[in-house]
Amino acid sequence: MADFDIGFDIPAVIGMPVAQIQTPALIIDLDAFERNVARMKTAAETMGVRLRAHAKTHKSADIALYQMDHGGAVGICCQKVSEAEALVRGGVNDVLVANEITHPAKIDRLARLAQRARISVCVDDAGVVPFLDEAAARHGVRLDVLVEIDCGGRRCGTLLGKPAVELAALVAASPNLVFAGIQAYHGNAQHIYDPAERRAAIDAVLDMVRETKAALASVGIACPMVTGAGTGTYNLEGTSGLYDEIQPGSYIFMDADYARVGASDGKDTVGGFEHALFILTSVMSKPASGRAVCDAGLKSHSVDSGLPLVFGFEGVRYLGASDEHGNLADLEDRLKINDMLRLVPGHCDPTCNLHDWFVGIRNGHVEALWPVTARGKIF
Amino acid sequence: MADFDIGFDIPAVIGMPVAQIQTPALIIDLDAFERNVARMKTAAETMGVRLRAHAKTHKSADIALYQMDHGGAVGICCQKVSEAEALVRGGVNDVLVANEITHPAKIDRLARLAQRARISVCVDDAGVVPFLDEAAARHGVRLDVLVEIDCGGRRCGTLLGKPAVELAALVAASPNLVFAGIQAYHGNAQHIYDPAERRAAIDAVLDMVRETKAALASVGIACPMVTGAGTGTYNLEGTSGLYDEIQPGSYIFMDADYARVGASDGKDTVGGFEHALFILTSVMSKPASGRAVCDAGLKSHSVDSGLPLVFGFEGVRYLGASDEHGNLADLEDRLKINDMLRLVPGHCDPTCNLHDWFVGIRNGHVEALWPVTARGKIF
Repeated sequence: MADFDIGFDIPAVIGMPVAQIQTPALIIDLDAFERNVARMKTAAETMGVRLRAHAKTHKSADIALYQMDHGGAVGICCQKVSEAEALVRGGVNDVLVANEITHPAKIDRLARLAQRARISVCVDDAGVVPFLDEAAARHGVRLDVLVEIDCGGRRCGTLLGKPAVELAALVAASPNLVFAGIQAYHGNAQHIYDPAERRAAIDAVLDMVRETKAALASVGIACPMVTGAGTGTYNLEGTSGLYDEIQPGSYIFMDADYARVGASDGKDTVGGFEHALFILTSVMSKPASGRAVCDAGLKSHSVDSGLPLVFGFEGVRYLGASDEHGNLADLEDRLKINDMLRLVPGHCDPTCNLHDWFVGIRNGHVEALWPVTARGKIF
Repeated sequence: MADFDIGFDIPAVIGMPVAQIQTPALIIDLDAFERNVARMKTAAETMGVRLRAHAKTHKSADIALYQMDHGGAVGICCQKVSEAEALVRGGVNDVLVANEITHPAKIDRLARLAQRARISVCVDDAGVVPFLDEAAARHGVRLDVLVEIDCGGRRCGTLLGKPAVELAALVAASPNLVFAGIQAYHGNAQHIYDPAERRAAIDAVLDMVRETKAALASVGIACPMVTGAGTGTYNLEGTSGLYDEIQPGSYIFMDADYARVGASDGKDTVGGFEHALFILTSVMSKPASGRAVCDAGLKSHSVDSGLPLVFGFEGVRYLGASDEHGNLADLEDRLKINDMLRLVPGHCDPTCNLHDWFVGIRNGHVEALWPVTARGKIF
């Protein structure tokens, strides 16, 4: 029996030894996390760009405020209105929704939120602009609006050239909107394993940004900033001379896929950041020689980018996930029931979104409990 | 702007037209859901087996109680102590934790919960039995304990023969435990597409159950019941004469993978159940001819068993998910911004676990809002 009285709403209590955390739990190695935050602060300062940390990774007001107070972040970005609402409620005062918001009811919520914090948003379609302008007028605010260009990711974003320029002009001509610049983010490029291919993808992005800035200048539209980039490529955009702001998110935690990106660069993870996020899991069955079963499956970590890695424990591999179980190879039969392992999740962002709490640990004990403030805020 | 005042904590209001639901949202077609519940009730009655509905699918006290009040379920099963705690708090009075609970603190919570509801649990290791017995004594309860056998899934479960019999004997000899029978569930078999292979897998399960019952009988240990089976194979176990109880969960909703299982049987989904669970999503970008982007990605549905299917809308396919986006093929350019689509998720269980609310719809309007009571309860 634990020395701490714990129930079903929270997996740990501050002060508890790690061995008593109820598993599976989402844990942060606070020392590694703080070093990652400091490393990116220094990188942004060295490159002379602003850091706008992406909160879609952690969805935590505590972490966002830490990034702003101690990590050099001028504000955060996120992807959804409900995410922005939750983070503003948690004290964050500068939020870029780095995404298109198109439904009139969501636009209304966004403009209302701008009464309480500085809010920016992206647009890639002219039909949405009047709704943004009307909502800003209705709530007595001015919204900063970025034109998102499709710079190779083939997701959202307007086409280059005339469509981009016309959209910027339309925003600039809207009385309650401010044309804030260009959003240029190539998501897929972050995860290209081959360094030369990754650089080539970002070189193409830079060409498109250059072309768009020139097209705007040719018709006399000032472009106040270019923002974008992620953890896999931030150094390329950041040193290009074209970007004013970078938007990395995963750098605070890293994950198994970024370890693979880093391996191709000859590092443990991309950019030399450290694994700071883990699923703490326990062995719950040792049914036969050579294998074991742990208590962390699909509801504890997201496998969209591959299976988790077992961290710091030789001879054990995570072979497969079902809803509530992880099948482990335990070739040397080192594991016994209730042994704990740390897993590096395949993909940190959707993994954090599965949990209600970050359990921050240091020196073998629980030091922090941070709610995943915007968990499930997807609308 | 919506006629209904909605915020970030809930995607809909009862009475609202479907068109005003904030997307992405997890919606239930209540008519189809009710027909699925009735169909399994009839199937269990016809086969003469008890139905213990698996709540790991929905994690909802409202749905569990509906299955017990209207769907013939004698109780529910789930996988985690925290899930059981949340469902008992929601009014469910008979819960089988169809899984091994091995950590002393979790065992203590489980025994404490048995003061408020009938609780059963599985075991596959003799070392855990004394902890179960002590916890039951400490809280003044008797726990029903099932011996789980590995019947081919190669996950948890004791080996057949002597280990299974010795474990049952140990449970039966524990003063505060009741040997309740055999748990025999082959998870992987549920999703075997080829009907002959699926049947062969369950035939092997039945042989193992038969062998285990005989081994118990040979040493004079009564086996009060055999429980197991899921949505993909319930009819095989249910008509075997060996099973007393079946544990299907997904039958209420179905998903894209069960559609594939059903297709190999010549049906829309396995067993003739209907798709009743959807992600309601909106088009948020129409950046180029032939493609569109919707607002439902990895944080809205789980892709562990494949991508979602677009339901009831020809010419559009879901091609890929990033965290908050879905890339759609829109080959005939039928979609425009803010159009809504229904997606059948690849895998219903981990998808439900991403959401806070089920939005029940009928006749084009929101009729029910059910919290996902045990969402995130994984420990």
